Amino acid sequence: MSSARLTQGDVLRMSSLFVRTLREDPAEAEVASHKLLVRAGYIRRAAPGIYSWLPLGLRVLAKIEAIVREEMVAIGGQEVHFPALLPREPYEATGRWEEYGAGLFRLKDRKDADYLLAPTHEEMFALLVKDLYSSYKDLPVTLFQIQTKYRDEARPRAGLIRGREFIMKDSYSFDVKDEGLDVSYQKHREAYEKIFTRLGLEYVIVSAMSGAMGGSRSEEFLSPSPIGEDTFVRSAGGYAANVEAVVTPVPAAVPYDDAPAAHVEDTPDTPTIATLVDVANAKFPRPDRAWTAADTLKNVVLALVQPDGTRELVVVGLPGDREVDLKRIEAALTPAEPEAATEEDFKKFPQLVKGYIGPQALGPQGEQVEGEDGEKVPAIRYLLDPRVVPGTRWITGANEPGKHVFDLVAGRDFTADGTVEAAEVRAGDLAPDGSGPLELARGIEMGHIFQLGRKYAEALGLVVLDENGKQAVVTMGSYGVGVTRALAALAEANHDERGLAWPAHVAPVHVHLVAAGTDAAIFEAAEKIAEELAARGVEVLYDDRAGKTSPGVKFKDAELLGAPLVVTVGKSLADGVVEVRPRAGEAEHFPVDGIVDAVAERVEALLA
Amino acid sequence: MSSARLTQGDVLRMSSLFVRTLREDPAEAEVASHKLLVRAGYIRRAAPGIYSWLPLGLRVLAKIEAIVREEMVAIGGQEVHFPALLPREPYEATGRWEEYGAGLFRLKDRKDADYLLAPTHEEMFALLVKDLYSSYKDLPVTLFQIQTKYRDEARPRAGLIRGREFIMKDSYSFDVKDEGLDVSYQKHREAYEKIFTRLGLEYVIVSAMSGAMGGSRSEEFLSPSPIGEDTFVRSAGGYAANVEAVVTPVPAAVPYDDAPAAHVEDTPDTPTIATLVDVANAKFPRPDRAWTAADTLKNVVLALVQPDGTRELVVVGLPGDREVDLKRIEAALTPAEPEAATEEDFKKFPQLVKGYIGPQALGPQGEQVEGEDGEKVPAIRYLLDPRVVPGTRWITGANEPGKHVFDLVAGRDFTADGTVEAAEVRAGDLAPDGSGPLELARGIEMGHIFQLGRKYAEALGLVVLDENGKQAVVTMGSYGVGVTRALAALAEANHDERGLAWPAHVAPVHVHLVAAGTDAAIFEAAEKIAEELAARGVEVLYDDRAGKTSPGVKFKDAELLGAPLVVTVGKSLADGVVEVRPRAGEAEHFPVDGIVDAVAERVEALLA
Repeated sequence: MSSARLTQGDVLRMSSLFVRTLREDPAEAEVASHKLLVRAGYIRRAAPGIYSWLPLGLRVLAKIEAIVREEMVAIGGQEVHFPALLPREPYEATGRWEEYGAGLFRLKDRKDADYLLAPTHEEMFALLVKDLYSSYKDLPVTLFQIQTKYRDEARPRAGLIRGREFIMKDSYSFDVKDEGLDVSYQKHREAYEKIFTRLGLEYVIVSAMSGAMGGSRSEEFLSPSPIGEDTFVRSAGGYAANVEAVVTPVPAAVPYDDAPAAHVEDTPDTPTIATLVDVANAKFPRPDRAWTAADTLKNVVLALVQPDGTRELVVVGLPGDREVDLKRIEAALTPAEPEAATEEDFKKFPQLVKGYIGPQALGPQGEQVEGEDGEKVPAIRYLLDPRVVPGTRWITGANEPGKHVFDLVAGRDFTADGTVEAAEVRAGDLAPDGSGPLELARGIEMGHIFQLGRKYAEALGLVVLDENGKQAVVTMGSYGVGVTRALAALAEANHDERGLAWPAHVAPVHVHLVAAGTDAAIFEAAEKIAEELAARGVEVLYDDRAGKTSPGVKFKDAELLGAPLVVTVGKSLADGVVEVRPRAGEAEHFPVDGIVDAVAERVEALLA
Repeated sequence: MSSARLTQGDVLRMSSLFVRTLREDPAEAEVASHKLLVRAGYIRRAAPGIYSWLPLGLRVLAKIEAIVREEMVAIGGQEVHFPALLPREPYEATGRWEEYGAGLFRLKDRKDADYLLAPTHEEMFALLVKDLYSSYKDLPVTLFQIQTKYRDEARPRAGLIRGREFIMKDSYSFDVKDEGLDVSYQKHREAYEKIFTRLGLEYVIVSAMSGAMGGSRSEEFLSPSPIGEDTFVRSAGGYAANVEAVVTPVPAAVPYDDAPAAHVEDTPDTPTIATLVDVANAKFPRPDRAWTAADTLKNVVLALVQPDGTRELVVVGLPGDREVDLKRIEAALTPAEPEAATEEDFKKFPQLVKGYIGPQALGPQGEQVEGEDGEKVPAIRYLLDPRVVPGTRWITGANEPGKHVFDLVAGRDFTADGTVEAAEVRAGDLAPDGSGPLELARGIEMGHIFQLGRKYAEALGLVVLDENGKQAVVTMGSYGVGVTRALAALAEANHDERGLAWPAHVAPVHVHLVAAGTDAAIFEAAEKIAEELAARGVEVLYDDRAGKTSPGVKFKDAELLGAPLVVTVGKSLADGVVEVRPRAGEAEHFPVDGIVDAVAERVEALLA
């Protein structure tokens, strides 16, 4: 057990501790961790997504930091510390000054020079290694920091889960060869497993990047939680991925020699896919089976907004039984951000007949096509869901009001400018690795490990001389743990309706000692127990409040604050008995004479 | 001995430690601490006044933080942690959003709301206490944080001495009564004495505020150093003050019934005070003694710039043998900042005849006076040095080119709009408390303790119910220690021409162990010593570099890095002997068999 801020037993006293508990949930809090951390006096909101830490919160934070630090040191990580306030230039060199868009806090100094509040520090670490090192002999090296980061989130939410000022452990590995990066990556992966295990956080490691992007690996450590912002999938066969990373298994192409020619039909009053399917089955029945939504090709118009603000209209085609998942599209097309097309967007492209858009009016990208009045307008980029393979037959818009086209065959009657993972992933979809159907769950992203490769090193000129005396671009890994977020995830996973219930390794104190009553003897005995426990290395929060504070109020506070053991010195002291109760367990009774030993042993067992 | 980041012995190895020493001083460094901290690989500059911390630097910083933290906890301080990024509103409420002027980093978030990077946190602490506490029974309370602060210094300089991003311990005390504030203040004063003593920093406590401002006290802890930015004075009798705080002893008024009437004389070719005195002695000799510069009244035109940018011209009158000290004027007239008047300023006030300005053309403030061409212009505020008491007789400008007025008597022939501590303090000036002549020295401001009083509490509505159930405004103290600055001051005070020489309590490691030679036996013995020392709780930097790194290079690095003990395993190992040398002392030789005991004992002695 160690902590960055306190390494030995001590006694906090409720009579003087800077804390006040609240009986009511704070108005702005949506999730349990946020409500309870505020109610228990661990944190206070200073601004949206920006929090102040009170003494108890800071103690938990220090313990989490210490565990993260120890495991980083254990894999050879060396601790450094970078500024939060940084000049624009390095981020300009890698393109991130622009790419970060509105999520980056930017400011100017008194000389009108551009600065930013760093969201992560890839650039600075790379430049520091470039400054100090010059030979393959200097590598590998892993550097880390535990530091305050800034992101101007559009929607800060869930208290500490998505904040605008937060603490991260970020580390970076530097290797000459790809195999070296694999080793550094694997070391971090194992260190993260140890960290989350020591923190007592359940975690799932999910792929965070589709194989489509080539050799580099990226995985996230998610803490399963219904309030998590990340949706992930897993199969019974062991596949796990963030939904953004799920690759749709591509069906085989379908022979279409026997397919009938495409034919346009009147389909009035079909404002939705359901009504279209009904009309199709009623008026144009398919001989072998009924039409379903999966036979329709839905064409969704989106605007892609680049970091510099430029806006491109694209159309995404996907089976009509699936919804578009903007987060998956965003992951596929980053740094562009997709959003719904506006009326104004539609006006610029008269070939888009709303509700009846078909592939024939789209693409190829970069060409001019004929608009409604015969004038030329730019073709719109058309991207298809991977399920729309050559030979598949579709009902889709005919680019005329009230008309749809039937038996439109992919590869014969239309092509696209590319494919995109646009469709939602659903429970029951098959895992791409053949390990069976997927189930969906939500999780909080606790950690992220990422093989960056040579992108940053190239942009910043980070080269070393290799064994042959030749310049070699260094390959980097980037690894993060959300420290403040881990605290919230721990609170999320360890509470009940009465309050917080910390695992012993991260609890602000080990023992919450309640003097329940008014007799001087009770306070004297409790005081002695508190001091003796502290001398044994136990951290004690002693509720020494005299006067009007009732035992009931003290017990309520103990349950809200969430120390793992509650020790009560009360009426039974007259019989020489003290009560010891785990935060979420049954009370035991001990003779007051051996109480310090008994409690210290239990604390040791909890920390073992 | 404790540290926030490492609490036990460990071994760093030069072969893998993220450090590179430089033989040359970095171009941008002006002072020894900055040069050596960069050369020894403790810090690197990220931007003007903004530094990155390398592993050795971070270890020193952690030890300083731990000492500061322990002493704050020892006086009952409770640790909290506030954001650096804060909304405008609380700082608007106290007027500091404006008052800070260009020294405040301001920014906007994506919703165009105003934020700042906090320079100190008086507002936030007051609001947090207001949030939690409501009764006199809750007080006193002292809260502190060790946190990153931001100031957009006009001239960041001297490396860590005056940075734009830096770490401070700031604490705040909250009391109901003035006597309580006195107690809290005194506790901090004593804690600071312990902190600087434990750090091994010589310090002088100086008054930082003139008595003129009333009851509140303010003192600075300065580390005497020729590179310090603060000039302070002290007398043999125990008076010590920052020059800004020195109050000029006011001479008694002089009877002037017998004084001759003022008379204007031609004084051509007197561009300086020296030439004026020469002409006066030659053409208008004084019967009793020669004229000196102290008989002339110099009128200096300044512009006072308010935080909102408004600009007011004032004239300061002072004896001609003294220079104006802008820092003293600034301290007296804060938040306005004085600067030299420009040609443009002069143009607006034709009554100012440059080189011949006399009091008759000045003030009273707020009135209109006749300008050169008979038109009315606003009167200029006129402030006098306290030495210009009624009855004193002066030679000064006659507001006509080439003419001065003689025997102009203060109080008879002119008055002013007020007095100001405008003149430089000089060695030999008398202490205001009668404790004798002053000597001047320079120091680095390491700490500042300040009785804020009720200003912030009033602005922010921080009131509690007192014993009588009445609302009482809380009185605050504000106390700061520059943590990164302390590190620089320690380097400044502990180095020689060969490098750094840390006191043991803050050294990054206790022992620098050099394997000097190429024999495997040397490396084996050194490795064993390193591990055994670490097991004893000693922090060891083991220079295990093999190959081409010569013993000479290793010794140079050891002296540059500055660990308190250098242990060398070299050729004499063949005779069973190891060398132990204090960083700045004589070598001793020990049998290798008892070397771990001998070194551990020496480390313990250094830390005692």
